[in-house]
Amino acid sequence: MTDLSAISDALAAQAIELPSWAFGNSGTRFRVFGTPGTARDPYEKVSDAAQVHRFTGLAPTVALHIPWDEVDSYADLARHAEENGVRLGTVNSNTFQDDDYKFGSLTHSDPRIRRKAIDHHLRCVDVMDATGSRDLKIWLADGTNYPGQDSIRARQDRLAESLATIYARLGEDQRLVLEYKFFEPAFYHTDVPDWGTSYVQTAALGDRAMVCLDTGHHAPGTNIEFIVAQLLRLGKLGSFDFNSRFYADDDLIVGAADPFQLFRILFEVIQGGGYANPDVAFMLDQCHNLEAKIPGQIRSVLNVQEATAKALLVDLDALRAAQEAHDVLAANAVFMDAYNTDVRGALAAWREERGLPGDPMAAYLASGYQDTIEADRVGGTAASWGA
Amino acid sequence: MTDLSAISDALAAQAIELPSWAFGNSGTRFRVFGTPGTARDPYEKVSDAAQVHRFTGLAPTVALHIPWDEVDSYADLARHAEENGVRLGTVNSNTFQDDDYKFGSLTHSDPRIRRKAIDHHLRCVDVMDATGSRDLKIWLADGTNYPGQDSIRARQDRLAESLATIYARLGEDQRLVLEYKFFEPAFYHTDVPDWGTSYVQTAALGDRAMVCLDTGHHAPGTNIEFIVAQLLRLGKLGSFDFNSRFYADDDLIVGAADPFQLFRILFEVIQGGGYANPDVAFMLDQCHNLEAKIPGQIRSVLNVQEATAKALLVDLDALRAAQEAHDVLAANAVFMDAYNTDVRGALAAWREERGLPGDPMAAYLASGYQDTIEADRVGGTAASWGA
Amino acid sequence: MTDLSAISDALAAQAIELPSWAFGNSGTRFRVFGTPGTARDPYEKVSDAAQVHRFTGLAPTVALHIPWDEVDSYADLARHAEENGVRLGTVNSNTFQDDDYKFGSLTHSDPRIRRKAIDHHLRCVDVMDATGSRDLKIWLADGTNYPGQDSIRARQDRLAESLATIYARLGEDQRLVLEYKFFEPAFYHTDVPDWGTSYVQTAALGDRAMVCLDTGHHAPGTNIEFIVAQLLRLGKLGSFDFNSRFYADDDLIVGAADPFQLFRILFEVIQGGGYANPDVAFMLDQCHNLEAKIPGQIRSVLNVQEATAKALLVDLDALRAAQEAHDVLAANAVFMDAYNTDVRGALAAWREERGLPGDPMAAYLASGYQDTIEADRVGGTAASWGA
Amino acid sequence: MTDLSAISDALAAQAIELPSWAFGNSGTRFRVFGTPGTARDPYEKVSDAAQVHRFTGLAPTVALHIPWDEVDSYADLARHAEENGVRLGTVNSNTFQDDDYKFGSLTHSDPRIRRKAIDHHLRCVDVMDATGSRDLKIWLADGTNYPGQDSIRARQDRLAESLATIYARLGEDQRLVLEYKFFEPAFYHTDVPDWGTSYVQTAALGDRAMVCLDTGHHAPGTNIEFIVAQLLRLGKLGSFDFNSRFYADDDLIVGAADPFQLFRILFEVIQGGGYANPDVAFMLDQCHNLEAKIPGQIRSVLNVQEATAKALLVDLDALRAAQEAHDVLAANAVFMDAYNTDVRGALAAWREERGLPGDPMAAYLASGYQDTIEADRVGGTAASWGA
Repeated sequence: MTDLSAISDALAAQAIELPSWAFGNSGTRFRVFGTPGTARDPYEKVSDAAQVHRFTGLAPTVALHIPWDEVDSYADLARHAEENGVRLGTVNSNTFQDDDYKFGSLTHSDPRIRRKAIDHHLRCVDVMDATGSRDLKIWLADGTNYPGQDSIRARQDRLAESLATIYARLGEDQRLVLEYKFFEPAFYHTDVPDWGTSYVQTAALGDRAMVCLDTGHHAPGTNIEFIVAQLLRLGKLGSFDFNSRFYADDDLIVGAADPFQLFRILFEVIQGGGYANPDVAFMLDQCHNLEAKIPGQIRSVLNVQEATAKALLVDLDALRAAQEAHDVLAANAVFMDAYNTDVRGALAAWREERGLPGDPMAAYLASGYQDTIEADRVGGTAASWGA
Repeated sequence: MTDLSAISDALAAQAIELPSWAFGNSGTRFRVFGTPGTARDPYEKVSDAAQVHRFTGLAPTVALHIPWDEVDSYADLARHAEENGVRLGTVNSNTFQDDDYKFGSLTHSDPRIRRKAIDHHLRCVDVMDATGSRDLKIWLADGTNYPGQDSIRARQDRLAESLATIYARLGEDQRLVLEYKFFEPAFYHTDVPDWGTSYVQTAALGDRAMVCLDTGHHAPGTNIEFIVAQLLRLGKLGSFDFNSRFYADDDLIVGAADPFQLFRILFEVIQGGGYANPDVAFMLDQCHNLEAKIPGQIRSVLNVQEATAKALLVDLDALRAAQEAHDVLAANAVFMDAYNTDVRGALAAWREERGLPGDPMAAYLASGYQDTIEADRVGGTAASWGA
Repeated sequence: MTDLSAISDALAAQAIELPSWAFGNSGTRFRVFGTPGTARDPYEKVSDAAQVHRFTGLAPTVALHIPWDEVDSYADLARHAEENGVRLGTVNSNTFQDDDYKFGSLTHSDPRIRRKAIDHHLRCVDVMDATGSRDLKIWLADGTNYPGQDSIRARQDRLAESLATIYARLGEDQRLVLEYKFFEPAFYHTDVPDWGTSYVQTAALGDRAMVCLDTGHHAPGTNIEFIVAQLLRLGKLGSFDFNSRFYADDDLIVGAADPFQLFRILFEVIQGGGYANPDVAFMLDQCHNLEAKIPGQIRSVLNVQEATAKALLVDLDALRAAQEAHDVLAANAVFMDAYNTDVRGALAAWREERGLPGDPMAAYLASGYQDTIEADRVGGTAASWGA
Repeated sequence: MTDLSAISDALAAQAIELPSWAFGNSGTRFRVFGTPGTARDPYEKVSDAAQVHRFTGLAPTVALHIPWDEVDSYADLARHAEENGVRLGTVNSNTFQDDDYKFGSLTHSDPRIRRKAIDHHLRCVDVMDATGSRDLKIWLADGTNYPGQDSIRARQDRLAESLATIYARLGEDQRLVLEYKFFEPAFYHTDVPDWGTSYVQTAALGDRAMVCLDTGHHAPGTNIEFIVAQLLRLGKLGSFDFNSRFYADDDLIVGAADPFQLFRILFEVIQGGGYANPDVAFMLDQCHNLEAKIPGQIRSVLNVQEATAKALLVDLDALRAAQEAHDVLAANAVFMDAYNTDVRGALAAWREERGLPGDPMAAYLASGYQDTIEADRVGGTAASWGA
């Protein structure tokens, strides 16, 4: 069994934030299929997220999406979280489901609608104040579908102005993280399409504005670990939205489509000082369209943990020696040796040493929680994306 | 003004089928925005489609989508169409919006669900009998999201069996056209992902099974005109679903994203004998998420007409001479000369000669129809995709 | 250590053909860098290939490329191979490095050049007769760079005619395998761009014409294992050219870019009856531009062996049960369980039981062969691709 | 005929720099085909480039590539250029064809090789001093082929240091432009893969360091006009390398693959103040692998001119009004109206008014120059890329 002793402390430092919306229904433009037992309100979502943490010890916080997760009392929701052993985390804004935003939100040419979108973000900061959240995460659906539809340049300038207004509202311990995305839902141009744009927009704001890297938001063939290395070098990598994809923004379980890519990304995070670094938040952003949601999230955090363990196991001395010698095959072999290692048994033992179940998936399934929610949660509709 | 006399008859032979669903609301998984005046039932959709034909003379038929367009009496709907100057056309099946189809329809491992999906198609043929439609178009959302989820091979065999059952039900003058799509809504594998699969499946059925080519359903960089040439060579190009895309299956207005590609496709259609050939149906399949729907369809058929006119204008003698001489620049110049020609003025005159408005977009806007439907169509919900 | 007893015989049946050109220099359009000790003629290439087999037991045959590997006596070259413990295998034609083929070879509009290209293939069959090779592999660089440059359709028809002439020359135990490629060196259209085209062209020839699938020759995002499943279903998968890629036809070491994809491909090969099936040849087609060539090939065959072992280890009963139950997570978990298994130690033991070195890479490096060839092979130029 | 009077002065301000290497042979890794009459040395290349300017008035300068274009006396070469009616322009460095650069140049881990690469660039600045050139253009082939081969981060830091040393050598009126490229010749990671990297590296250097945008150096689907708008907004767009592509870095004639994209790019250049702006150099970077080189360049500059004329013709008042009203179809129609205009006749007349031939392609072919060089230039080998 692989010896994890040298990396045991590092593993213990891992924390992955769960998205509340992963516990709601989701789908494609063609159909949102329902899944029995799906959470219907923020309280149920938090309860479900707490199960993931209970069985893995990896997921101490839950991200909120406003307005999907609006509640009367955020203090009460925070208390509910704590009672379940977790905390509330990043607050995500949402400016893509109101008719006013059909042609843009923070980039809209109409000052009234821009103001409405800005005000939504200010309310999100109010929520953060109430929940004690540090990060305001902004992903914008803004863009156009047809050449000529709007001015790319004017929208970029309006975006800068809107972001500055929001940034000014942040508290000293709060941050703004700006997510970029290659395309969808806009099909001709997207206002924050790449890391470069997110970088220049956040660099213009100040030190508490950072870039959020969603692993599914790139053009085909993009070397994501390069972007990780570059953003860490620039001190601007604020957070990850982990998921995986075969084609576009498929939002599949992280590590499911290309586990070697996940390993490479985590290796670069570690090398660049981004691991167990509070400045770099690890989050999931996924859609469990077909599979069960709670075990889907458990599988996800375990995938990240396994890839992290492998990335921590790379023999750096041997790697550097081979790199210095320009021995391409030897360097690659050192790298692959860690990737090819089966860490699952050792991680099970490591978990058990910490009072966690060796097999979190089996433990969850045996817990009876799933049966309970499938029986209890009948009726009701969720405020979620397309759900 | 460009002389169209040599191609005037060919232009007059053009007919483009409109999709009823283009007149309903549509959107992305993030949001379906409403548009004032949108049709709410099959009768209103047919009325709207008829406007496109009234102002362009290009769109004499309307395709139906079952069950979105289910009505009590298809004979009555057909009469409504004729009263409005159009006819009912291709019947499209839909096996992607019922919970039973979460894991597949014609490919499902459960015989009960396969039978349900087959029966749905048999009912579609009943509709065709009632409407006098020739073509049953099958696009399947079937596929899987995760490696291992199901057997790729077993699903392909089940597909063949299901299609054979449906094919056996067709009348002598009816056809089955099978559409392929690269990805979405399935993210790991799709059961009919490419023209090769659609070809081998329809070749196994018989002569009345053909391939449907949707111009937005290919991998990045795919040379679509090559596929057109190949399918025409094989006698298996049954129909087009025209639209355009920058990234994935964006379903934008045909010709909007890459007008030169549309020209190349139409040139290959003409060279391969697929133009004004009843075996090769021209259809639109688009989503007007942001723009007005009736003028969006008018713009679409005009784009196809303009590209067709240009493709018909290519000087084939000069082209062949340059090709024979391997004069790459000269051959490309002959090709581009037609593409770079501005045919709009000549087409306006050509239309006016035939009693049509020279500027169909302006004529539609001046007609008052849009104002009327925006005033009249308040309330109601459409059975449409995500609408 | 993983128990390989159930799959031991299957592993023993594996044979991977090596490409002679992998032992020559290669590069990009920007530069072909030299590597010390590189083989300079077919005899040296065969000697090097034999080293791979000597240390792995996996590579009993060597493919030739004509005219790169032209020799005065193929009988003598075959004897040289046997003396080194290997045999000569597939004969690859080459119609891309003669000025006459600037505008095409088997598809050229000039009958004289088509005839020249056909005659080259007939000479390749002569070589096959002399070497006892079964397969003639045809990869064509034919295509065009600019729209209008030539007739896509006419070229396809000429291709069919040329292939038929070549096919007619084959002996009863010989086969023609036609490789497809998405793009490069042609940039607008390629005459055999996809599996569909290779399928319809070889289906028209007869049972001894098959498709060759090069794993690097697809559009971004293509699901290759689907194509494997489909071609096996159709009885037309004749051979693989294994390699890996991040972007285009990078020709990297197989399994280096996406080891999970290699596992999925091999799983589908096994499921479809293509493993240890003489009709489906496993070959490598790679370019070791930067890394040492012999150990590069050793790494490659080991990568295929490891992925094969994992694919053979999938618990099919558990997989089918989960698939039947539509338990997406469970099915995926069974699949990933095999992939995540570290088979390296067990394979080392398995090798040693068969008198092979447990660590073929280390054994090769310790053998002194590399030092010898680096010292001996000074001067001379290779007939190779760009070398 | 289209009225160009309002844009006549703007058209007269256009200048496009030609690459000397476009007049040499080029090809793919598979083959460099020769073309009769191809220039064999820098003097002949300059003479050929001068023909393009003579017949179009669009190409007053020629870019050099060092060491391909090394001569004994740059003053003499500059005089030769002036005698032929053109001037020498940008100096391009080349660190991809020396064995020392197999594993990198400015990013190499060995200080000796880094120094060698830096020194090469300093010598390029010496050439610039001699020729009076303003811009040093750096495109780096640096990167790795295999994960683990080298440290992505360390290479980025070394790149920054190397660039700083080169930048310090520049004169006050000289600039460094850094080109990015998605992939090739490196297949795993490239050290300057995207505009973001080029931006942050040049921003760190100072105001005289700018980004070079090659239109063929992006991932599939990238919206290039967005990058143009962003770089102009940031004041960092230093130059264009124009060409076109269907798949990768195909280096086809600009406007040949997607003329609408070229139009959109030029529209954004104009809107962002980058047109007829000395800070933004227009250059070609193409490979005429199959077609004749001088007429290939004439076609290229004419394509840019035609697209520029169309982009200048966009009715900005109408466009803004439609954009303000969020009338997507109207805004797109204004945009497309300019694109669909046939400006060729008006441009021919505009040229003739300025003493230039109306049809530069025909005039060149009639001039006899091509016959002369095909007869005269026999023998000799060019220092060019792969030539």
